[in-house]
Amino acid sequence: MFHRIAILGVGLIGASFARAARKQGLCRHIAGYGRNTENLRRALDMGIIDSFEADPAAACDAADLVLLSSPVGSFIDLAGKIAPGLKKGAVVTDAGSVKGNLVSGIEDLMPSGAHYIGAHPIAGSDRSGIDASHDELFRNALCIITPTIRSDKASLDTVIALWEKIGCRVERMDPFRHDRVFAAVSHMPHVVAFALVNVLHDLDEGFMEYAGQGFRDTTRIAASSPEIWRDISISNRDNLLEMMRAVRREFEIIIRHLETGDAAALEEAFRKAQKLRQEIG
Amino acid sequence: MFHRIAILGVGLIGASFARAARKQGLCRHIAGYGRNTENLRRALDMGIIDSFEADPAAACDAADLVLLSSPVGSFIDLAGKIAPGLKKGAVVTDAGSVKGNLVSGIEDLMPSGAHYIGAHPIAGSDRSGIDASHDELFRNALCIITPTIRSDKASLDTVIALWEKIGCRVERMDPFRHDRVFAAVSHMPHVVAFALVNVLHDLDEGFMEYAGQGFRDTTRIAASSPEIWRDISISNRDNLLEMMRAVRREFEIIIRHLETGDAAALEEAFRKAQKLRQEIG
Repeated sequence: MFHRIAILGVGLIGASFARAARKQGLCRHIAGYGRNTENLRRALDMGIIDSFEADPAAACDAADLVLLSSPVGSFIDLAGKIAPGLKKGAVVTDAGSVKGNLVSGIEDLMPSGAHYIGAHPIAGSDRSGIDASHDELFRNALCIITPTIRSDKASLDTVIALWEKIGCRVERMDPFRHDRVFAAVSHMPHVVAFALVNVLHDLDEGFMEYAGQGFRDTTRIAASSPEIWRDISISNRDNLLEMMRAVRREFEIIIRHLETGDAAALEEAFRKAQKLRQEIG
Repeated sequence: MFHRIAILGVGLIGASFARAARKQGLCRHIAGYGRNTENLRRALDMGIIDSFEADPAAACDAADLVLLSSPVGSFIDLAGKIAPGLKKGAVVTDAGSVKGNLVSGIEDLMPSGAHYIGAHPIAGSDRSGIDASHDELFRNALCIITPTIRSDKASLDTVIALWEKIGCRVERMDPFRHDRVFAAVSHMPHVVAFALVNVLHDLDEGFMEYAGQGFRDTTRIAASSPEIWRDISISNRDNLLEMMRAVRREFEIIIRHLETGDAAALEEAFRKAQKLRQEIG
């Protein structure tokens, strides 16, 4: 399918993508780029990548597919650095959790003959790094593809086929709709989980030892990478702010019910949530 | 260990307690009481209980152990109803998630010769009802026992031995400390989970279909029983209010960081939470 794939950011997602692409026989050579040379050397030793470069443009030299899989805050900088050297017909995709304006920002940087198609595979977990990577990470994962009116049709087909080949169920979505949806179902819950852990600790350090399965589940995603979630929060901050303010409003209502001892209102809110939560399984 | 156990509230906890007690050979007869006759009949058919009564005092007749395992809001009423008929030497314990003033409230109602010792097994889940019950629910679960200066020493020993026999690790704690700890590690996270589900739904009904593993984990406990959590919220509302206000304050800080685009502050908050969360495993 490709001769040479360049993976910019060899972490959980980038390394899992490389492993899945190799398993599916999608290319002959996988080049890696990242800021941490030690990590790249380990990825090379583990057979995840075939070579690595200290410069992103060098990693993309002669690549017909480029994956941006570093924290989303680095995408514009990386796209700018690799753009001049992209070969004719090169396709650039990504695995970022934010789309919106980033998509047109990257599109703007593409040279003539090279094309960017945004993608967001809903995979990954609270774990990060190449040691958590595996070639089936994307199996049955939803992958949102965010084409625009500027998207090259052939490149779009290529990117859809690529993500499907490594196991994803592909769905197209407007980049701005994407950011609202994932601010609500993913970005806001992550920020809430981070906040709950800090609140618990700051209230009383001794509380944490009594954390049971409920607290563990509720805050599992707070073990996620701070850099990744800093970038997502900043890149999608308008939507995230909307969702956080909505949570704050809901909290105000619950706090008021508690203050007035309104058992019926609390039960009604809990019953509504129980029904909705049971529906998603 | 006992001749006759009465279980007031035959749901997930009450039925699991009955099954575990039977498996451990702790008694000859288990009598059940509850508001739902159909449920009691099924518990009888399933061999979970040996008899049931429409009146809590009748269920406790001749019982040497009584377990309160209905929603905590019913405890005072039930204790008042059963107290006059408790036999000499009867021991009353419970499985409620709230202690504090409830403990002295129940102690006040005990007749001479019968004794109450509070207990809170940290077991159960988002599932409820007898179909989810099993005889190993308490295996390795922490059980907080909340004796007071009024506690009868022999009854305390009996209750500790009882919970240990069905598999719990027992720890003693002051009833008021208990309520602060569990408001923080359990009650607040439940209320947050209920709130997140409702917020997501109210923002856009279409969002829910994109809920991934992160959202599912974060809100798993929102599938819990509305009645149980209404009672817990009301019974422990001062502590819960304190915790909810602390979460609200933390949210205010995060919202401010987002508004000002303070990436470094967000990363620092996320890093602190990540470290703490990874520590509890």
